[in-house]
Amino acid sequence: MFDLNELCRAAKAASRTLMTAGTEQKNRALLAMADAVEENSAEILAANAADVAAAREKGTRENLIDRLILDGKRISSMADGLRQVAALPDPVGGFDSVVTRPNGLLIGKKRVPLGVVGIIYEARPNVTADAAALCVKSGNVCVLRGGSEAVRSNQAIADVMRRAAGESGLPEDCVCFVSDTGRDTAAAMMKMDKYIDVLIPRGGAGLIRTVVETATIPVIETGTGNCHVYIDGAADLKMGAEIIYNAKCSRPSVCNAAESLLVAESVAGEFLPMAKTLLDKKGVEIRGDEKTLAILPDAVPATEEDYYTEFLDYILSVKVVSGIDEAIEFINEHSTGHSECIVTNDYNNALRFQNEIDSAAVYVNASTRFTDGGEFGFGAEIGISTQKLHARGPVGLEGLTTNKYVILGQGQVRE
Amino acid sequence: MFDLNELCRAAKAASRTLMTAGTEQKNRALLAMADAVEENSAEILAANAADVAAAREKGTRENLIDRLILDGKRISSMADGLRQVAALPDPVGGFDSVVTRPNGLLIGKKRVPLGVVGIIYEARPNVTADAAALCVKSGNVCVLRGGSEAVRSNQAIADVMRRAAGESGLPEDCVCFVSDTGRDTAAAMMKMDKYIDVLIPRGGAGLIRTVVETATIPVIETGTGNCHVYIDGAADLKMGAEIIYNAKCSRPSVCNAAESLLVAESVAGEFLPMAKTLLDKKGVEIRGDEKTLAILPDAVPATEEDYYTEFLDYILSVKVVSGIDEAIEFINEHSTGHSECIVTNDYNNALRFQNEIDSAAVYVNASTRFTDGGEFGFGAEIGISTQKLHARGPVGLEGLTTNKYVILGQGQVRE
Repeated sequence: MFDLNELCRAAKAASRTLMTAGTEQKNRALLAMADAVEENSAEILAANAADVAAAREKGTRENLIDRLILDGKRISSMADGLRQVAALPDPVGGFDSVVTRPNGLLIGKKRVPLGVVGIIYEARPNVTADAAALCVKSGNVCVLRGGSEAVRSNQAIADVMRRAAGESGLPEDCVCFVSDTGRDTAAAMMKMDKYIDVLIPRGGAGLIRTVVETATIPVIETGTGNCHVYIDGAADLKMGAEIIYNAKCSRPSVCNAAESLLVAESVAGEFLPMAKTLLDKKGVEIRGDEKTLAILPDAVPATEEDYYTEFLDYILSVKVVSGIDEAIEFINEHSTGHSECIVTNDYNNALRFQNEIDSAAVYVNASTRFTDGGEFGFGAEIGISTQKLHARGPVGLEGLTTNKYVILGQGQVRE
Repeated sequence: MFDLNELCRAAKAASRTLMTAGTEQKNRALLAMADAVEENSAEILAANAADVAAAREKGTRENLIDRLILDGKRISSMADGLRQVAALPDPVGGFDSVVTRPNGLLIGKKRVPLGVVGIIYEARPNVTADAAALCVKSGNVCVLRGGSEAVRSNQAIADVMRRAAGESGLPEDCVCFVSDTGRDTAAAMMKMDKYIDVLIPRGGAGLIRTVVETATIPVIETGTGNCHVYIDGAADLKMGAEIIYNAKCSRPSVCNAAESLLVAESVAGEFLPMAKTLLDKKGVEIRGDEKTLAILPDAVPATEEDYYTEFLDYILSVKVVSGIDEAIEFINEHSTGHSECIVTNDYNNALRFQNEIDSAAVYVNASTRFTDGGEFGFGAEIGISTQKLHARGPVGLEGLTTNKYVILGQGQVRE
């Protein structure tokens, strides 16, 4: 019988060991986990085949099944991911600052692990390995709760990693897996604030909203991106067309893809047909306001709802605006606070956009698709945060740490 | 008719201006607010007299009435607080890091305001001025919701500050006040995640728990401190007695006061009578385990509940432990993660305590009473966080900021 409370209690107990584990010990475990995933690929693939068969039986859509399927290549890529994380610098143990106060107290602000990180995710089984790797590296125990359709695969991957971690000297409970994928268990996990320090949902907007509304544990919200590109009156229009084409089409299913294009009225007549020529290569559906339709008569009329929508598809909402003021106001109202771009050669408009847009990543003259831990040079990411507390933008290993003040005295007491 | 939604919408709109307000503009507003609080003290004192009369009529306890009462001196101290915050460095606008990536993108991590900060607090009206000052300085709009017993005083202080801010050129809505102190309105405010970016409860454990359970807005938890002092076998016992006396008695009603004393068995027979001599000066009630009672026969037997309790009074739970291992395990189980201290001259035990205790502030040979923004050199504090996300330990102005990535390109697109 699965006992969530017992699992979380064990996770917290293991976190006492992980918290003080040295860099070499953690890296040894990660490399052992990588080898074990490859060596036990038959066990993992058998579990995955059972998941895929069950999904087919339920009539699951093929694009979801594609995300579920593992093969030798995907397993190697999982193992490589574990090895890459082992090679990254250890985010814990350093001091952000150390000061000596007038009374002689030495006060250091030390980077330490969060403790126990709960991760609630959807289809892809590779998240099991990725999330565990980042947590182990940052000295955290993870409690993993994946989707029901991948539960056999996730369990197999977690079991293999647990055994390998245990053999390498870390507690097996450094990776904890919630085998009951029922909704009641998920809801109960979101309230385990006695044992879990932080909760990270990885998935669609519905999952994230449920976690935010249910959890009593602090949450790092990740991933919803209604990203905008604004073509200013002073833009290099050819650059603008290439940026919106890249931002929309290079990978439409991800959160840093553009969903909405704003164009200054003064250049809309010239720009929109240029952009359309590129967007047509991928058959992008344009949903525009009246002024857009006057320039691109084939476009679909946009609803107000469209401007709030993250399409994650070859669909783009378009609006002609009077200029920078309307663009900034419109974006701050409609955006999810992920990534926005201005294309301009006007110095003051570039500065204003940087200062006045309230989003995690604000670009001048570059594609929104760069909002990514790898592209930012973090080496790895657990997600892209659109909230302002703790971590905003791509969250790397440092986002999985917190600080602790260490104070050394010689008998000081307070007056 | 009070309209919470409209108030929060106005707060968000004002935050667009606050976000880009310059340091001088914010300081001018703070100084104007300080002068206005003093110049309009008659208006504030009249409102306060009405609050006090209403509280007396309801039979409120005198110690609560004492917290509620304002006089000329307390008003001056509020105004001085505003001036002190004006004198602090501006926490926003700087860059934590700027890197140039191999593709030429310049990526800067800029300190920016959170946006709209909701503050839910209890009795003391001075929190209205303190919280508003810290928010204005950090470029945030505050939505203030104080306790019903101080509502007239809080409203008067907020009105005076709003007018002064408006006259100095900031939007009056940089300080928003929730005049309806009903519970339904408080609960609705905790779910205003469309407009409020962060929620900070300031008050007792009950208030904090309600906020954590109700809010959909990210919360900075502050203030519950079940703080421990552990007297190691290798301690300077005289220093230990002075530290526990200071940590317990210098101000028992605050969160950084010690609530629990652990003593290594090898020194308990010598130490406990020494400590008791000091603690007796304030009539501290000692609640001890069996081994403590064997040494101090007058002590009260402790219940398991006592070891989880933040007394905020002249009461101390005491336990004799076998040594450092039991002390660390006991503290990590019972503490609220606020502040803990080891008194020792043993190098390895000092290191182990620092590394293995999972609390915001970990002391060697100094009183837990130093966990405070002022004592840490932050100039001001909005509270002491016992959670791990975003801010841990004393939260100064920097805790009221977040970051935003600003990316400057020359047409870069992603492959």
